[in-house]
Amino acid sequence: MSVSDTDLANAIRALSMDAVEAANSGHPGMPMGMADVATVLFTKYLKFDPSDPFWADRDRFVLSAGHGSMLLYSLLHLTGYARPTIEDIRHFRQVGSPCAGHPENFELPGVECTTGPLGQGLAMAVGMAMAERHLNAKFGDELVDHRTWVIAGDGCLMEGINHEAIGLAGHLQLARLNVLWDDNRITIDGAVDKSSSEDIVARYAATGWHTVECDGHDMADVARAMEAAMASDRPSLIRCRTIIGKGAPNKQGTAATHGAALGAEEVAAARKELGWDYPPFDIPEAIRAEWLKAGQRGAAPHSEWKARLAGHADRAEFERRMAGDLPQDFSLKDYIAGLIADPKKVATRKASEMALEAVNAALPETIGGSADLTGSNNTLTKGLGTFDKSDYSGRYVYYGIREFGMGAAMNGMALHGGVIPYGGTFMVFSDYARPAIRLSALQRARVAYVMTHDSIGLGEDGPTHQPIEHMMSLRVIPNLDSYRPCDVVETAECWELAVQRKDGPSLLALSRQNLPQLREEAAENRSARGAYRLRAAEAKRRVILIATGSEVETAVTVRERLEARGIGADVVSMPCWSRFDAQPADYREDVLPNVAPEEILRVSIEAGTTMGWERYTMVNGLRFGLDRFGASGPAARLFEHFELTPDHIETRIVAALGE
Amino acid sequence: MSVSDTDLANAIRALSMDAVEAANSGHPGMPMGMADVATVLFTKYLKFDPSDPFWADRDRFVLSAGHGSMLLYSLLHLTGYARPTIEDIRHFRQVGSPCAGHPENFELPGVECTTGPLGQGLAMAVGMAMAERHLNAKFGDELVDHRTWVIAGDGCLMEGINHEAIGLAGHLQLARLNVLWDDNRITIDGAVDKSSSEDIVARYAATGWHTVECDGHDMADVARAMEAAMASDRPSLIRCRTIIGKGAPNKQGTAATHGAALGAEEVAAARKELGWDYPPFDIPEAIRAEWLKAGQRGAAPHSEWKARLAGHADRAEFERRMAGDLPQDFSLKDYIAGLIADPKKVATRKASEMALEAVNAALPETIGGSADLTGSNNTLTKGLGTFDKSDYSGRYVYYGIREFGMGAAMNGMALHGGVIPYGGTFMVFSDYARPAIRLSALQRARVAYVMTHDSIGLGEDGPTHQPIEHMMSLRVIPNLDSYRPCDVVETAECWELAVQRKDGPSLLALSRQNLPQLREEAAENRSARGAYRLRAAEAKRRVILIATGSEVETAVTVRERLEARGIGADVVSMPCWSRFDAQPADYREDVLPNVAPEEILRVSIEAGTTMGWERYTMVNGLRFGLDRFGASGPAARLFEHFELTPDHIETRIVAALGE
Repeated sequence: MSVSDTDLANAIRALSMDAVEAANSGHPGMPMGMADVATVLFTKYLKFDPSDPFWADRDRFVLSAGHGSMLLYSLLHLTGYARPTIEDIRHFRQVGSPCAGHPENFELPGVECTTGPLGQGLAMAVGMAMAERHLNAKFGDELVDHRTWVIAGDGCLMEGINHEAIGLAGHLQLARLNVLWDDNRITIDGAVDKSSSEDIVARYAATGWHTVECDGHDMADVARAMEAAMASDRPSLIRCRTIIGKGAPNKQGTAATHGAALGAEEVAAARKELGWDYPPFDIPEAIRAEWLKAGQRGAAPHSEWKARLAGHADRAEFERRMAGDLPQDFSLKDYIAGLIADPKKVATRKASEMALEAVNAALPETIGGSADLTGSNNTLTKGLGTFDKSDYSGRYVYYGIREFGMGAAMNGMALHGGVIPYGGTFMVFSDYARPAIRLSALQRARVAYVMTHDSIGLGEDGPTHQPIEHMMSLRVIPNLDSYRPCDVVETAECWELAVQRKDGPSLLALSRQNLPQLREEAAENRSARGAYRLRAAEAKRRVILIATGSEVETAVTVRERLEARGIGADVVSMPCWSRFDAQPADYREDVLPNVAPEEILRVSIEAGTTMGWERYTMVNGLRFGLDRFGASGPAARLFEHFELTPDHIETRIVAALGE
Repeated sequence: MSVSDTDLANAIRALSMDAVEAANSGHPGMPMGMADVATVLFTKYLKFDPSDPFWADRDRFVLSAGHGSMLLYSLLHLTGYARPTIEDIRHFRQVGSPCAGHPENFELPGVECTTGPLGQGLAMAVGMAMAERHLNAKFGDELVDHRTWVIAGDGCLMEGINHEAIGLAGHLQLARLNVLWDDNRITIDGAVDKSSSEDIVARYAATGWHTVECDGHDMADVARAMEAAMASDRPSLIRCRTIIGKGAPNKQGTAATHGAALGAEEVAAARKELGWDYPPFDIPEAIRAEWLKAGQRGAAPHSEWKARLAGHADRAEFERRMAGDLPQDFSLKDYIAGLIADPKKVATRKASEMALEAVNAALPETIGGSADLTGSNNTLTKGLGTFDKSDYSGRYVYYGIREFGMGAAMNGMALHGGVIPYGGTFMVFSDYARPAIRLSALQRARVAYVMTHDSIGLGEDGPTHQPIEHMMSLRVIPNLDSYRPCDVVETAECWELAVQRKDGPSLLALSRQNLPQLREEAAENRSARGAYRLRAAEAKRRVILIATGSEVETAVTVRERLEARGIGADVVSMPCWSRFDAQPADYREDVLPNVAPEEILRVSIEAGTTMGWERYTMVNGLRFGLDRFGASGPAARLFEHFELTPDHIETRIVAALGE
């Protein structure tokens, strides 16, 4: 049997429709429509080696239109990755199969990032391309010289984040980024022109991109377009005109192929149409062999690369960074010891900058930035240099007013590896970046979010800018460590934990206003416990004050007043709920003993929503916070207005104790 | 004194810099830079009548760059609105002044929407322009014939939502929408070209907009551009080249004027530069008189309009709709009675469609839509017609893959008045629209969010599509009523509440999977209580099962099994936390008596995060949920996998009871 490129593409089509049919769920339209384009990419241009999915210098391939996951699973299987096996594919979308409904990086090597939430794959690819250029600038062409390829659909291009992502990529002239647009003119609701009339190519051109078009079913034409893209000195949009569900003779070109099994009858008709005369999940040996050959293209360049690495002066550093290991001696102990010796009263956003001075000096892999709030987020430290098209070795990114794009780019950088990204905005605008924060957590990406102006303490900007519900709404995201440190020492501790963490994101909520240093010792990183006794009762303990961030100072003041009345009170600083909940039961019981409120009254103080605090105060405890939107006024005045002052809290506690 | 247009503009500049100086906080740069453009708009073209800020046919003016709030406050004051007074302006950014840091629609008539979160003002303006065209199509030019004007800055244009908003506006050919872009080439971090290289005019043109440019400090040129915009049959971008902080001789043209007081010295220099020889907050009579005259331009057209309305056949209906009143006889009682008589087992997303059939038939003011998930969200009912450029009378909007843009457009529609918008997407993508949902709540806008596929019950699409933390993270948004109904009856009740609510948004979390009808009576709207006893214990009550949505069915099953063991159990269905929390104490105590867990064990069941449920279960109760991301697999298999089945729950409860 002589094997044609179309046979190769049809293998993708067959696996995709068979898997969706078996699951009776999934999206056959996109894999069938883009099978030809993907075949050209994977057999001719993509640099990869299935025997080592983590080869540092591989091209990154991102399926931004993640619903078309069978395209990717087919490609990984056919080109010879260890997984997915054909059995994995047979169990597409079943519990336990790595072939999940949408591609998940933590399930399957070769899946570079988790996609499905539209627009984010492409935006993460921008971050991957940034990391590539940065590492190239640091380590040279010998070690880092690869491309980032993306398949994106109309949905990815219509989402708002697309504007942010391509604006950033165009501005930074990320020439190694090539986006294959599956231009099938179909969305779930029907024809694209039902909801959009834009000239996408012109929009990309206006944003600084190179553009080229091709017939997505003419493989020579696709190759020509890819070569033009690779030759350009700008990021490229390759418009591939395709037919969704191509091969399904009665349904192709319609939304009916998008998100449901084709049905036995149409699958049979498609087999006929494609001349694919084989049983479900069966790939003829000749076709399989040809695909495996394509998968072996990378073996030689990979071993040449290994040889270059073996002899490279920076080998150890490169390997350390790509492994995500910190330098062995990394610690902020000395810096923190200095604070204990010489206390500082600063805003925690300033404390964050101080900690970052130490972090950035010790860790050359950090890449900082801000969504146009550099001076407010305090994210820029000395000597980082600007990451821009004239110098990719810079370590500070001016992301522009693109919170979501920044979050997604940071995810892409973290997943690329070799860098540790952090970026800032106002805490209230964590909402803008929230879908990316969720993906950081789901993907287990080491990203640090710097969220300043974390309460009504920001003052006059008013309720549009005052986070109320944000801290709590971030705490409920699984696998995200959300910190709200109380002073300069805790801020340093939280930073230490954020960069040490390899398996997920961290978020720091930081004050605009100055806060006294409350920590007087730092023998260990106490924030690592999530919560700890900052001040112990002197009189008989009748109250435990639990507070975070700027309200820990308030709690300390309240405690002093209670003690003056003979009422013993602990102050528990609780910078991180998720870490506290992960502590052993005896530690938690020591900090928050499970006794009736008549014995020890638990009180929470946090300038945000009180919902959720019942977890630690118990229902019959007291919760001080803000269950409404804020207001515009000077910060001190607002704390009075919303009754979050020591006076008010003391009075309420004393009343509750029946004194 | 003869008054020039420049004098008028300088009055804005003076008030703006004086107010910011007095507050020692605020943003003088934008008002000073756009004073000339705003003067042309408010003295020549904007249709408004300060004596009646709620005149239905006024032009809507949206300050999308909300940080420049002093521009708007100055204009409202100078043109003769009752508020802000000069005293209000003197108290800019102080608690109690309606002149908040950012403009808030609920503080000050004349402020059409709350802005500050960048990009959303322009996106809300798109909704206002949609509402205008829709009402025009319904009521004709005699009653509805106005424009929507926007001032937007670089931040508004760089945000992702800008892409969604202008894509929608361009597609819908909203010719009555004119955007004045304050092209000052400055962002907070410095020059725009530090983070952006795009050709904005070309991008707008690519998206179907008319574009025109002018010198923002040449008032004749500004007028020419505005007239060109008004003459176009497409939405217009008017690029106004300006100097930020114009008039402050040493700081203008730099980021230094953006977000801080200029300082006494620079203010003095600006007074000199502008030839403004008057004390702070003092407006010379001649200038004040000229501004008031501009404010009176609308009086004649307004009274002509009133005369047309007085004689109009549709007057009552028009006034009802603009007042936001429902028809007096509106109720879903009959529809619900039909369900009680003939129970239905359907997914609550389907139940939502059924309720909407009744709602949309009874309320001609509803405008539905979906972000490209019409068939999944079940948002389209019979006979609505499509809202598009060929027919603005249609009541269904194909929003495209633009969740955030949809949310913001709905806010704009609701604030415009005369329509009640609802729109759908997958619950997990509420994150994409979250900043708009927050603004719905803050602005007290009657918007209904239809969020389907509300848990792991959606099955195979996997963790990227499975909401886990979303219900809880929505509950913490102040003034948002978040509902998770359990069956077809509750879904109808929640819809009734959503459309009846005038002072804020509602959100419905709806299942993909079928759910049995559990309600057997509907004498009153029980969902209005937020939570109620759906099943009462028969044996001695030892357990209260509290559940929402699809897990109420589980709770009912568990209850039956417990009763079979002689363990009495209530089932409390809790579709809406915020409503339950607002009930009188005795009602809450009746549903959830405050007794020790040894007496009555409280148990929550919700296929989402358990954090927060301590509020109702108490710390020592049991919480069944999911504190990790989901997985890809058939729904029933996932409930087993995550131990959310009656078997598992029964076993745990029995163990907890020590039976």
